Amino acid sequence: MSTVSAATLRGFITRIYVAAGVPEADAATVAALMTEADLNGADSHGVFRLPQYVRRMLAGGMNKQARPHIVEERAASALIDGDNGLGHLAVSLAAQTAIAKAKTAGVAWCGVRNGNHAGPASLYARMPMQAGMIGMYMAVGSANHLPPWGGLELLLSTNPIAIAVPAEEETDVVLDMATTVAAYGKVKVKAQRGEMMPEGWMIDRQGNPLLDPKRSSEGLLLPIGGYKGYGLALMLGLLAGTLNGAAMGRDVVDFNADDTSVTNTGQAILAIDIAAFGDPAQFRRNVDNLVRDLRDSERLPGTDRIWMPGEQSALKRREREATGIPIPPPLRAVLDTLADQVGAARLSA
Amino acid sequence: MSTVSAATLRGFITRIYVAAGVPEADAATVAALMTEADLNGADSHGVFRLPQYVRRMLAGGMNKQARPHIVEERAASALIDGDNGLGHLAVSLAAQTAIAKAKTAGVAWCGVRNGNHAGPASLYARMPMQAGMIGMYMAVGSANHLPPWGGLELLLSTNPIAIAVPAEEETDVVLDMATTVAAYGKVKVKAQRGEMMPEGWMIDRQGNPLLDPKRSSEGLLLPIGGYKGYGLALMLGLLAGTLNGAAMGRDVVDFNADDTSVTNTGQAILAIDIAAFGDPAQFRRNVDNLVRDLRDSERLPGTDRIWMPGEQSALKRREREATGIPIPPPLRAVLDTLADQVGAARLSA
Repeated sequence: MSTVSAATLRGFITRIYVAAGVPEADAATVAALMTEADLNGADSHGVFRLPQYVRRMLAGGMNKQARPHIVEERAASALIDGDNGLGHLAVSLAAQTAIAKAKTAGVAWCGVRNGNHAGPASLYARMPMQAGMIGMYMAVGSANHLPPWGGLELLLSTNPIAIAVPAEEETDVVLDMATTVAAYGKVKVKAQRGEMMPEGWMIDRQGNPLLDPKRSSEGLLLPIGGYKGYGLALMLGLLAGTLNGAAMGRDVVDFNADDTSVTNTGQAILAIDIAAFGDPAQFRRNVDNLVRDLRDSERLPGTDRIWMPGEQSALKRREREATGIPIPPPLRAVLDTLADQVGAARLSA
Repeated sequence: MSTVSAATLRGFITRIYVAAGVPEADAATVAALMTEADLNGADSHGVFRLPQYVRRMLAGGMNKQARPHIVEERAASALIDGDNGLGHLAVSLAAQTAIAKAKTAGVAWCGVRNGNHAGPASLYARMPMQAGMIGMYMAVGSANHLPPWGGLELLLSTNPIAIAVPAEEETDVVLDMATTVAAYGKVKVKAQRGEMMPEGWMIDRQGNPLLDPKRSSEGLLLPIGGYKGYGLALMLGLLAGTLNGAAMGRDVVDFNADDTSVTNTGQAILAIDIAAFGDPAQFRRNVDNLVRDLRDSERLPGTDRIWMPGEQSALKRREREATGIPIPPPLRAVLDTLADQVGAARLSA
């Protein structure tokens, strides 16, 4: 499979957006975040989504020249209106605002409404972490694939949560999980690769296992832990969506099927300044010790290694920084078509 | 099965604590919260725990005259030292502090260290909700029953999370879940009732299903969603434990097996003032609409009803307010022995 460097991919995404009418600075910001997603191994949430984002812009469903801005504000909270632009812009503003407020207030929470799909949750939970804090992020997914527990109607999304905690010498601990057994993005990648899904990801409307990802539109994703995952998806949606006046439940627009309706996507981010609770260096050393205790503990027969959340992603990042980001042939074909369509240079090999 | 009224149970718990040396006001505060747990149907986290708490006090492992107090404070954060007293006292102070700060700052997060087991998570998530806010609570469990994913050593607890969101006319939406398929308290109740556990709750050290709750000390609880539940338990423990300088991982004292070591239990609570994000009445009506959409949606064949998180607990509360709190004979026998031991009047019929 051919690969591209992060710099090459970033340049490609930037010029596609600019050709589509996005201001250069915004295009560069979003391109950097989408490339970051690909570097971290979030294959279903990086450049893979570019054709869909651009299609939505060109169809008038997303504002190319959006100006996300704060509409409500207190010492430790803010509500951001994403102006129906690329979700990455609104959530980045939310993260920056939360970090700045947490520096003084100790903790801050910022919500987003009128945003759009913003890529992988871990991107944003990492932003406070990169500022020496703990980050937490949650979002309303951009299409409903989950029924309430015992139900058939797709009224909930895979609403993800990410939590990022810095370590000192060990790899930072970063959880990024959908509240369903599989994220819908993983289903889409399986479909594009022509692979079957394992049992337990989806059921059909009769309750039988659904294995063919090309039939995913007929199926229901399964929540983790049964009714618990359903409850968690619901609560995260209330926090990231309803609280911000963003879409939730029946109001969620399926952004895979509909390129023109305003999605009013909601997200929320929490930043915790570790220094408000003690010495940050001591905290990070305690995280190191915990990581070592867990990683080096006795394993079940047949288990080679105990992984920390975020560790596989960090390994993938090192690998891709060295050898490039793989671009599967079907994705490259789609990206070539997109480049031709907007009149930008294709992604080089 | 015999039942007692909430007032009778509250009075009993209060006099047991007072006889054991707890100041009357603290005894009444904790008795009210423990009775609340029983009213809400949290059978494994109310009066069921009283003998264990008192045993720990009498053994010197818990401070009867504790004075929980704030040790670090900013506009939207606080760290509380529980002074090794009853966990309910420290977490109540954390919740009150978070509510007071969130009224001004919009959002506030308070952590606890040097606390103890505090009963069901939902008790504390409900406190901000009762003040018109959204509440979130997380805790490090008081004994390790969960290995890292792929591991055999019990280095993690069932670390629970609760989130409480107010509705207008509908029942408030309150999620309270352990990050394991079953909370360890449910295993204890099964053991006391002489019932077997369903498959999927625990495995033995060879990876086989463990069904007899009397053998639970030989087993491993299973996390929800496999590695996801493991990751969530770890992150909640970092937030509720490590951040506060409280015990986490190998440092967690098994409070079922050890009555004398200081547990240094950690908890965290978040309060979100809905008014910082918009009109609270409108928010609660939006919650009502979402609840109705979910509850009234099409059901899988064979499903009688779609439940909201917290709805079964609310029904149980109404039932128990009317007909009393059931006290199974084995529990009554244990409580009678306890009353005799501390020289207080027994629980009346």
